[in-house]
Amino acid sequence: MAETRQWRLASRPVGEPTRENFELVTVARPAPESGEVLVRTLYQSVDPYMRGRMRDAESYAEPWDVGDPMRAGVVGEVIESNYDGLEPGDIVAGELLWAEHAVADGNDLRRVDPDHGPISTALGVLGMPGVTAYFGTTDVAEPKPGDTVVVSAAAGAVGSVVGQLARLSGARVVGTAGSDEKTAWLTDELGFDAAINYETTDDLPGAVAEACPNGVDVYFDNVGGPITDAVWPLLNVRSRVAVCGQIALYNATEIPTGPRKLGKLIESRARVEGLLVYDYENRWGEALSRLSRFIADDELRYREDVVEGFENAPDAFMGLFEGENIGKQLVQVADRND
Amino acid sequence: MAETRQWRLASRPVGEPTRENFELVTVARPAPESGEVLVRTLYQSVDPYMRGRMRDAESYAEPWDVGDPMRAGVVGEVIESNYDGLEPGDIVAGELLWAEHAVADGNDLRRVDPDHGPISTALGVLGMPGVTAYFGTTDVAEPKPGDTVVVSAAAGAVGSVVGQLARLSGARVVGTAGSDEKTAWLTDELGFDAAINYETTDDLPGAVAEACPNGVDVYFDNVGGPITDAVWPLLNVRSRVAVCGQIALYNATEIPTGPRKLGKLIESRARVEGLLVYDYENRWGEALSRLSRFIADDELRYREDVVEGFENAPDAFMGLFEGENIGKQLVQVADRND
Repeated sequence: MAETRQWRLASRPVGEPTRENFELVTVARPAPESGEVLVRTLYQSVDPYMRGRMRDAESYAEPWDVGDPMRAGVVGEVIESNYDGLEPGDIVAGELLWAEHAVADGNDLRRVDPDHGPISTALGVLGMPGVTAYFGTTDVAEPKPGDTVVVSAAAGAVGSVVGQLARLSGARVVGTAGSDEKTAWLTDELGFDAAINYETTDDLPGAVAEACPNGVDVYFDNVGGPITDAVWPLLNVRSRVAVCGQIALYNATEIPTGPRKLGKLIESRARVEGLLVYDYENRWGEALSRLSRFIADDELRYREDVVEGFENAPDAFMGLFEGENIGKQLVQVADRND
Repeated sequence: MAETRQWRLASRPVGEPTRENFELVTVARPAPESGEVLVRTLYQSVDPYMRGRMRDAESYAEPWDVGDPMRAGVVGEVIESNYDGLEPGDIVAGELLWAEHAVADGNDLRRVDPDHGPISTALGVLGMPGVTAYFGTTDVAEPKPGDTVVVSAAAGAVGSVVGQLARLSGARVVGTAGSDEKTAWLTDELGFDAAINYETTDDLPGAVAEACPNGVDVYFDNVGGPITDAVWPLLNVRSRVAVCGQIALYNATEIPTGPRKLGKLIESRARVEGLLVYDYENRWGEALSRLSRFIADDELRYREDVVEGFENAPDAFMGLFEGENIGKQLVQVADRND
């Protein structure tokens, strides 16, 4: 009987996730029922939001049960199909499992055309992170020509796209990131006007203020915590804050505290708004079409950080919280041509 | 030579303002120049935002200089006029001084018609606090039928109007206030659906949750601090937070800290926005016309807390931070008929 491997949630993390929270199990390969397909995973995504699903608390994404396989964005190859419109050999993307093979309803999969570029991008710049960046920028942050835009985790899968889209809107773009390699990528390759390595900066508020002499019109926040504290006092009148992620706080074991922020909003009449890509599921086509065009015109660049081997998926996930990735963090589970 | 009295800023408060921060001086009564009028103060307003002007820090309102007379909303009687269109005996409102008499440019004054109701309302329900409440509700908080709306400092000059306007929009309204007399006024006279006395509640988050079984769709915040912390976890998807004041923090001597709040915005996609009434100065007519109509129809009620005597103005101001006032806090400086 054909088998496959899955990563399951072995226990809920307290603070930083550790390898003990994950269990690798070998199970019978599932069979697709009517309307379903069997997908062989080629690339699996690891994303910061998954930390929330490891927690036993209601949020926008349902928590995973201990003992169950975890879910992930996957790009894979259809190897068996009981769904009209998908054939073995087709490349698809969707939310499947941390698994080498998984079954999905054909209606829940997007077809990926390998002629349009690397199929892995369906998990990054042309997938959930890219679409998040797109709507977070166009619909929430709304950068305008001449605006100063600050992006935290600017070298990440979302932040790197946000910064480039803001630049295309005519804004001046400042990014924060955690290594000199990242800040060099932002300024030398992606056209950011300035980038701050928060790991090597003694005076973060001073560094952000220096990089933003005209204050901040848009802050796109992927991080929270002290970086956000440094940006906050610079918010201009009628500025916008798009809250997309708070990775600095996801492993907290107590309720995180910090400087109170609402008073500044009165003075600045700033608008602060959270965003979730799920709210835009009917508009993915718009985002993918514009992002693809920008890539084709070399106005939008991206980078992928690929860990090889399904057995390394937990390490790839845990590395997100150490800031190890540049661009989109992926796990290559299998080669399409094998 | 005719004289008048003024309250001047004697020193900047550290923490709670004290009587030593204010100095009562007698000066020559000023003479109006061309285009100006001399106004005899009848009512003077004291407002929480004035605490910010006592501070030596840039904000939306310029700080007062030590030694200078302080400014305040005033309703008074014109007693000398060099301005076409205002005559002695006319009642006017405007930003003048903490003073028994002051000179103003006629263009900076609004005429108050004593036939339309008590002239003191030009500092309250038909003045800056009422207009703040009006635009904060209609333009920022946007309560809809069936929404649950929470208002902090609900028995104050702004909060009491916000709650009633929200109720007129078909929302369910919950207020917080600091005494049983206030909460009784809210529920028995103003039609609030529930009111919480935060001074006598051991478990504020529990009390707010109990009063809001369907969560919170709108939070109109005049207070900040622990009351806001109690409301925050209840924010519903697409809820709105209007930040109008943070009186709980105005006397802080260090940067106030508290639970971090941005993460909740991702889950709820809530929008948080600061508001300042100055942004609506071209639309006062709209607000006053609608508020007057609601008052005439007994759909909007108000209360004024009047301290008698100019010499008591600092106490009236300091009382704001003790929550002593119900409704709009005023100082009666002179009687119109004297």
